[in-house]
Amino acid sequence: MLEVALDRDQRARIRTISWGDPVISVEAARSLRGVDFVRKIMNGQIPAPPTFELIGFRLIGVEPGEVTGDFEPAEFHYNPMGGVHGGIVCFLLDSVMGLAVHSQLPTGSLFATLEAKVHFVRPISATTGRLLAHGKVVHPGARIATAESRLVDKSGKLFAHGTATCIVVPETSQKVPVLAGDL
Amino acid sequence: MLEVALDRDQRARIRTISWGDPVISVEAARSLRGVDFVRKIMNGQIPAPPTFELIGFRLIGVEPGEVTGDFEPAEFHYNPMGGVHGGIVCFLLDSVMGLAVHSQLPTGSLFATLEAKVHFVRPISATTGRLLAHGKVVHPGARIATAESRLVDKSGKLFAHGTATCIVVPETSQKVPVLAGDL
Amino acid sequence: MLEVALDRDQRARIRTISWGDPVISVEAARSLRGVDFVRKIMNGQIPAPPTFELIGFRLIGVEPGEVTGDFEPAEFHYNPMGGVHGGIVCFLLDSVMGLAVHSQLPTGSLFATLEAKVHFVRPISATTGRLLAHGKVVHPGARIATAESRLVDKSGKLFAHGTATCIVVPETSQKVPVLAGDL
Amino acid sequence: MLEVALDRDQRARIRTISWGDPVISVEAARSLRGVDFVRKIMNGQIPAPPTFELIGFRLIGVEPGEVTGDFEPAEFHYNPMGGVHGGIVCFLLDSVMGLAVHSQLPTGSLFATLEAKVHFVRPISATTGRLLAHGKVVHPGARIATAESRLVDKSGKLFAHGTATCIVVPETSQKVPVLAGDL
Repeated sequence: MLEVALDRDQRARIRTISWGDPVISVEAARSLRGVDFVRKIMNGQIPAPPTFELIGFRLIGVEPGEVTGDFEPAEFHYNPMGGVHGGIVCFLLDSVMGLAVHSQLPTGSLFATLEAKVHFVRPISATTGRLLAHGKVVHPGARIATAESRLVDKSGKLFAHGTATCIVVPETSQKVPVLAGDL
Repeated sequence: MLEVALDRDQRARIRTISWGDPVISVEAARSLRGVDFVRKIMNGQIPAPPTFELIGFRLIGVEPGEVTGDFEPAEFHYNPMGGVHGGIVCFLLDSVMGLAVHSQLPTGSLFATLEAKVHFVRPISATTGRLLAHGKVVHPGARIATAESRLVDKSGKLFAHGTATCIVVPETSQKVPVLAGDL
Repeated sequence: MLEVALDRDQRARIRTISWGDPVISVEAARSLRGVDFVRKIMNGQIPAPPTFELIGFRLIGVEPGEVTGDFEPAEFHYNPMGGVHGGIVCFLLDSVMGLAVHSQLPTGSLFATLEAKVHFVRPISATTGRLLAHGKVVHPGARIATAESRLVDKSGKLFAHGTATCIVVPETSQKVPVLAGDL
Repeated sequence: MLEVALDRDQRARIRTISWGDPVISVEAARSLRGVDFVRKIMNGQIPAPPTFELIGFRLIGVEPGEVTGDFEPAEFHYNPMGGVHGGIVCFLLDSVMGLAVHSQLPTGSLFATLEAKVHFVRPISATTGRLLAHGKVVHPGARIATAESRLVDKSGKLFAHGTATCIVVPETSQKVPVLAGDL
């Protein structure tokens, strides 16, 4: 259905994504326990957020306080110097840290990430192969939660790691989105 | 040329991007002064990196040690809770911080970002409107440089800010990509 | 009054500090506007916290959202490698960032620092001379505030910089100390 | 030997510390394997750095890439709001992260911490009791190493955690101190 231009080295440099209506996910987030919400995204019962399609990120494991996703580095993730952009790595780790916090919330609570920090410890390219992003709650506070994360390949080799601080918004009456700026 | 499915609320939820061969940019990075390299990306004389097309990020100002880009938040940037994903914000700030450092490098030097931290201070959605990402070198060291960044709207309202640490690799003989993991 | 041992290189390696009852400061923090509280510490009308005496840190300027302190590096600030310990630098920047946030609070509000990050960009030793630590609020949110800081010498040369996230606790009924762990 | 003033609530608010000549430690750092250097500090065969005496921090466990210290919170560690100052917590975690990196270095290599970030998750006061600070290398790179840390009580309850980035300086010819600013 797509006509694509092939460049001189004969590779199609085009990517098309589509996504579902985000309102479905927003409404589900307000009515489900956190762990059920995140699992339904993993299982496709709730549309994955548009950015998961955009970046090519997929959840593969969800337990309360701990989530894992996977990611296949490709040329469309590149920075100006021919490697996977650090911002893409941030996206992966921010995602699993936020979802780890989300997966511990009771029904009706939401959260916002206040800050995240990522260490980039090895370069990543299209030949690196599939990577796993693990996120885990470190401090499950009632109002403030912290989380940590690792990006590794199948052999456990580390490519990046990070930490984040999230604020938990316990009232269901909070407007959505509940992000730091409301606070 | 694209056939798109319209969903129930009649909005096309599809995005197609294309990009140029990254090898052009990688080779240019090795033969140009940093500020010239970054300006040629801004002016379209060097293909923008694939991620700039993916995310919808465009450079609009480049001086040595200081760069500005712009960004129009859209639904495809959303997280599961109906706001722009923090990882997208990280992408914007990591980009302008890295390019600010790059724009100060002499010919032949490259750099890698070792870590970046981002504070999310206000929520961003598709109705927020165009944002500007400013990156600026704080410490222009010969081996280690630091940078800071701000994400603001046209009125100067702050949405996010951050800092980063970069390592400068002064030898032209370094293999590409020169990222932290080589170090 | 103190008998000190002189070592072989004839320098007295001893330091004695004293401090006032912290309860005075804690009570004042609950009954004063933030800027008045921080100014009274600067002016000696409220006892400086014990750590200011321990480290040798002194406030020299306080405006709402912005404070400056000074610090004279000395051998007692050293790490195992003969330079001022990074933890001392963290102390200085964490202090001015927290006090910058405090100096904007209305009467009855308190705050807790959730996290702080410091970049060390130049070594500091006993011969570096007097340093100024500047802290400034970046995002003065009602519930979450962020701040940034710089450590410079009199010529403006940068030695360290950082950012922090604080939570504001608006109720006078909160128990003291109001730190992150209560949250 | 010390005459101390007792204040109205009959507690002596005075602290006296002494320390050894830092040159001994600096010279030892250049001639020993990292793990041996850090162990000799722990065992008292090399004078502890002045800051360890100042803050009241003591090493109790050293393995390559992993160190533990202990700390007894006291009133002299207080901030203006009657809790242990965040800068003191930074000092503890920065110490164990730096020493964890140091404990993996070969003879002749030194390091400098480029940045450190600390999350404060529970308040600490003089009644909290003894705390343990654990530091551990995460990425043991030849040029860049990262580390993480935890501050816990005897039951494992978490009070703070953090990460840091260090640069390794492999040449014995480097001038001392080798801190980020030389770089």
